[in-house]
Amino acid sequence: MTLRTLPRLVTLEGGEGAGKSTVLAALREALSASGSEVVSTREPGGTPLAEQIRSLLLDTHHEPPTTDAELLLVFAARAQHVRETILPAIERGAWVISDRFTDASYAYQGAARGGDLGFIAELEQRVVGIEPGLTLLLDVPVDVGLKRARGRGAMDRIESEREDFFERVRAGYLARAQAQPQRFRVIDATQPQADVAAQAVAHLRAWMETNA
Amino acid sequence: MTLRTLPRLVTLEGGEGAGKSTVLAALREALSASGSEVVSTREPGGTPLAEQIRSLLLDTHHEPPTTDAELLLVFAARAQHVRETILPAIERGAWVISDRFTDASYAYQGAARGGDLGFIAELEQRVVGIEPGLTLLLDVPVDVGLKRARGRGAMDRIESEREDFFERVRAGYLARAQAQPQRFRVIDATQPQADVAAQAVAHLRAWMETNA
Ligand SMILES: Nc1ncnc2c1ncn2[C@@H]1O[C@H](COP(=O)(O)OP(=O)(O)O)[C@@H](O)[C@H]1O
Ligand SMILES: Nc1ncnc2c1ncn2[C@@H]1O[C@H](COP(=O)(O)OP(=O)(O)O)[C@@H](O)[C@H]1O
Ligand SMILES: [Mg+2]
Ligand SMILES: [Mg+2]
Repeated sequence: MTLRTLPRLVTLEGGEGAGKSTVLAALREALSASGSEVVSTREPGGTPLAEQIRSLLLDTHHEPPTTDAELLLVFAARAQHVRETILPAIERGAWVISDRFTDASYAYQGAARGGDLGFIAELEQRVVGIEPGLTLLLDVPVDVGLKRARGRGAMDRIESEREDFFERVRAGYLARAQAQPQRFRVIDATQPQADVAAQAVAHLRAWMETNA
Repeated sequence: MTLRTLPRLVTLEGGEGAGKSTVLAALREALSASGSEVVSTREPGGTPLAEQIRSLLLDTHHEPPTTDAELLLVFAARAQHVRETILPAIERGAWVISDRFTDASYAYQGAARGGDLGFIAELEQRVVGIEPGLTLLLDVPVDVGLKRARGRGAMDRIESEREDFFERVRAGYLARAQAQPQRFRVIDATQPQADVAAQAVAHLRAWMETNA
């Protein structure tokens, strides 16, 4: 592995409805209170072009991408996001919190869609080149997450997958967390929202004490 | 190399203004006269989703993609094009003529932008998997082609590159033609349009005689 680890890049991962967007707001607040510049961003997306790629990936009124096209579109958006948003922010000393990053490709395009993990790792090396210092994985049983996500309104193309797809996503995330315990913190996201947020902030504070 | 060669897939390559679109019409006519179904298509593009990726690549009012994002967007569009348009047509016995295909990535994203040719070859193996039986390379000096292309109206993002970029495109194409003489026919496209078209049709007829 020749990825450059960025201590100030923090990522949130987890399935649909795990609570990533909710926790992101709490992390942002905690970081801002420390006086640092904080950039919060998301994937797929995070630049105007990457957001356009996001809509090709998620909108249900488009021709659906094939498995290979989906994988390459996700990494095209990520290459753009890293170069145009994440690296400039990190270089000026900001913290960056991203709602999803490369781990999501291992879980969705890899574990769930059956994509070749070696090819995903090669794309990561060649066009991403960086990894977060800290990744918070919000883990919930699939049915709990889907019920929450469905409460949010219309489902996008990925959210409309079948339940076994999300079981593979969840297992894919847990396998990555187990393989890289120094970077991952797994949070039981079935807990009440305030408790999940408090644990996420506690993990971030502990991380900042050793890496700020 | 483990690419599957499709005898009925014919591709047209060459720089801006070489005359590809012009020749495509002549090839289409010659093939239709033989009674076969003919699908003419183009890259980037060839499916609704791939055409949307094309506009992300070419429109000048978008945020320009980075070199890596450009490469992955081109191959995402190609993966979609192969799976949704080219293979179904070939499987029902049609001929397919494409205005550009994978060789264009070796010339533009590889030779001209300096992309890693080994990585391009790996993307070709993994997400394209096929190669044309016959490729006609329309070769013109850069200044001649650019003058023609500029006569067509507003320039897209690639057409707006500097002259040395197109010199590398031309050299990249000629190197590929030299390396794969069994598949390539190089046509001097400075000749009058009717002569270029006649030579292209003659190459196609010769090819059909041995491969139809
Ligand atoms: N711990 C929680 N308990 C109950 N509901 C939650 C919890 N966390 C988030 N929610 C709700 O679930 C829905 C999905 O949360 P969201 O943060 O959008 O998830 P994600 O971004 O991971 O898809 C929202 O309506 C949110 O208010
Ligand atoms: N052999 C030729 N001699 C002179 N003009 C040509 C020739 N071939 C094409 N053209 C003209 O040059 C322009 C570009 O041709 P086109 O087929 O659109 O090129 P390409 O598709 O390779 O960019 C068009 O206006 C076309 O009429
Ligand atoms: Mg969310
Ligand atoms: Mg043309």
